[in-house]
Amino acid sequence: MLSEQALLYGNQSSAIRTLFEYGRKRAAVVGKDKICDFSLGNPSVPPPQALFDAFEAVLKADPMDTHGYTSAVGCDELRAALAESMTRRFGMALKPENFFITAGAAAALTACFCALTPDRETEFIALAPYFPEYKVYSETLGAKLRIVPADEVNFQIDFDALERTISKNTRGVVINSPNNPSGVVYTRATLEKLAELLRRKSAEAGHPIFLISDEPYRELTYGGAEVTFVPSVYENTLVCYSWSKCLSMPGDRLGYVLVPEQVTEWKSVFAAVAGASRMIGHVCAPSIVQKAVAKCVDAMPDLTVYARNRNLLLEALPAMGYECAKPDGAFYLFFRSPRGSGNDFSEEAKARDLLLVPAVTFGCPNHLRIAYCVDTAVVERSLPIFKELMEKK
Amino acid sequence: MLSEQALLYGNQSSAIRTLFEYGRKRAAVVGKDKICDFSLGNPSVPPPQALFDAFEAVLKADPMDTHGYTSAVGCDELRAALAESMTRRFGMALKPENFFITAGAAAALTACFCALTPDRETEFIALAPYFPEYKVYSETLGAKLRIVPADEVNFQIDFDALERTISKNTRGVVINSPNNPSGVVYTRATLEKLAELLRRKSAEAGHPIFLISDEPYRELTYGGAEVTFVPSVYENTLVCYSWSKCLSMPGDRLGYVLVPEQVTEWKSVFAAVAGASRMIGHVCAPSIVQKAVAKCVDAMPDLTVYARNRNLLLEALPAMGYECAKPDGAFYLFFRSPRGSGNDFSEEAKARDLLLVPAVTFGCPNHLRIAYCVDTAVVERSLPIFKELMEKK
Repeated sequence: MLSEQALLYGNQSSAIRTLFEYGRKRAAVVGKDKICDFSLGNPSVPPPQALFDAFEAVLKADPMDTHGYTSAVGCDELRAALAESMTRRFGMALKPENFFITAGAAAALTACFCALTPDRETEFIALAPYFPEYKVYSETLGAKLRIVPADEVNFQIDFDALERTISKNTRGVVINSPNNPSGVVYTRATLEKLAELLRRKSAEAGHPIFLISDEPYRELTYGGAEVTFVPSVYENTLVCYSWSKCLSMPGDRLGYVLVPEQVTEWKSVFAAVAGASRMIGHVCAPSIVQKAVAKCVDAMPDLTVYARNRNLLLEALPAMGYECAKPDGAFYLFFRSPRGSGNDFSEEAKARDLLLVPAVTFGCPNHLRIAYCVDTAVVERSLPIFKELMEKK
Repeated sequence: MLSEQALLYGNQSSAIRTLFEYGRKRAAVVGKDKICDFSLGNPSVPPPQALFDAFEAVLKADPMDTHGYTSAVGCDELRAALAESMTRRFGMALKPENFFITAGAAAALTACFCALTPDRETEFIALAPYFPEYKVYSETLGAKLRIVPADEVNFQIDFDALERTISKNTRGVVINSPNNPSGVVYTRATLEKLAELLRRKSAEAGHPIFLISDEPYRELTYGGAEVTFVPSVYENTLVCYSWSKCLSMPGDRLGYVLVPEQVTEWKSVFAAVAGASRMIGHVCAPSIVQKAVAKCVDAMPDLTVYARNRNLLLEALPAMGYECAKPDGAFYLFFRSPRGSGNDFSEEAKARDLLLVPAVTFGCPNHLRIAYCVDTAVVERSLPIFKELMEKK
């Protein structure tokens, strides 16, 4: 009677959400200050003042404009502001016409996957550790998502494994740097090697293999880590962005697909993204949010709390013996379970009211994710528990 | 290289938008006050004060709540407010759990069509005149949309034609009352007859045939016309709603799917709607908008201007000889072309700077739509042109 796929996705509860809900219930019993909840990747610092000012200005403007339809591609002022800002920041000439404004990165990714699915043989590739929803978004029109195992040493890319996974049906590879869940940023060398491989494989296949660069954490980096602008390295890159993390407004749903003019047949690709968006029920991204963000595209997040939390964890955990990925970005620290699977260790930690997400659904069954977008007090409280868990070994 | 379907939809320009763009350019040449533009079904009255107050309150509240994720099904306060309001207004016991909050009716409809598509044999039925985007939304997962020709006398339902169109693969029928483009409201008798037919055909097919009731114009009626609450007539009804028209906020993207408990296996249907929403890139509907509307779910549109425009047109046009559908709702008047096709007459009118949408894409090639959501001065200016066009006959 129903779509099996839809029913499956509707009934499936996310491991992260389940852990978070457990935490809420447990906090009601033992008190919130007894729980160290690192489950959700939800910004914990308020939006910058520029965003509040922008919303206030927009609500005072002509309501027929503020609350009216924008064109499906997005409102002129946001696309123009983006083109100006990104041309300035990344040194690539971008025009308003290159941006399709979406209701967040989820909608942007879904539109890209759908646009790049010519038939039901289509395959996309994600590199572990990867955001589990890629599977949902890529399979909407019947494509398949294949997974390349993680490079568990540096959390860059296992190129041999990637090359083996690329087939004649591969239409795109999705990357996410700074990465959820590892916090790792791909180096320029990694991206250049990736570009070289994709160029070679595109030539062999006789069609472009696109790079879908999912960049919600682009503005969240520490210690001066460089986030390479991916289209500057590989021509057939589509960028999917979201303001959820950098402006602390995940609920407001705003993002974009960037299709630079260097993309093969870029106008057709852009049209297919627009058409795919229609197919997934997009009319326009929320106009009040578009108009507010248009006024503050250069606003940057306040990283003080995240940086402090990261430093605390990074000083303490490796010294205790935890094997951590190098967390140059986002607000995640990723570590190998000291014993047993990530699931096992998550259960051990949970018994001490320390909530850590096991990374099996991210494609790394022996790792766990710490989402350190929390009050610093939570981090401080957690350290003795981490120590105790390690010493128990 | 690309999805043909996505490319087609991305390159296809809507007849309505094309006419509207023409009007904008023409206005720049001859002056805006020389154009009578009835092309867009875009609210022309500002939102009610209650919505402004609500947005103001929401922006003063905790920003982590205002701009944070809500749960995928929608925020508690909006679902609770809806359940209370609709139980009171429509006399059916509804709970928060029956509502899935979406980014407008487009997303709600797409989620329903996808949820109800078990295989690629699936068919849905729309009744002319119908909203052309139904074709886009229903075909996302590969279903087909079949069209039942209009009852051109009363714009109710041609039941013989509908019965012939229902097949063993029919999974749902989509209705839209008050109707875009006809402005007609289905009578209770029509809906009861429809329910009877669908019950009989469901029994024959061995699976429920769902009624998808698309109701963005529910609150826009004139002359005391009754809009029957469709689930009170047919048990397997899913209601798709949008606040775009009634609160004049089409850009802000907010709506819902209502799955009442009387629906066969309602929990599975609800889960499939939720899962289908994930598949089309839904994370949550824009939270700032959800929280604002939660504070004013009972706010009603100011119909003064629409009612005045409707009365002016309805007094004048039939007297000139135009054959009009009975426009009890929405903000549309629908009439038969006095000569030639709707396209032909639209061109004749356009030559006089009167912009009328030909209804061929709505499934009525001999009709035209007047979107009277405009300043009354536009209506007044249009009447001599309508007269001249009729007398030219």
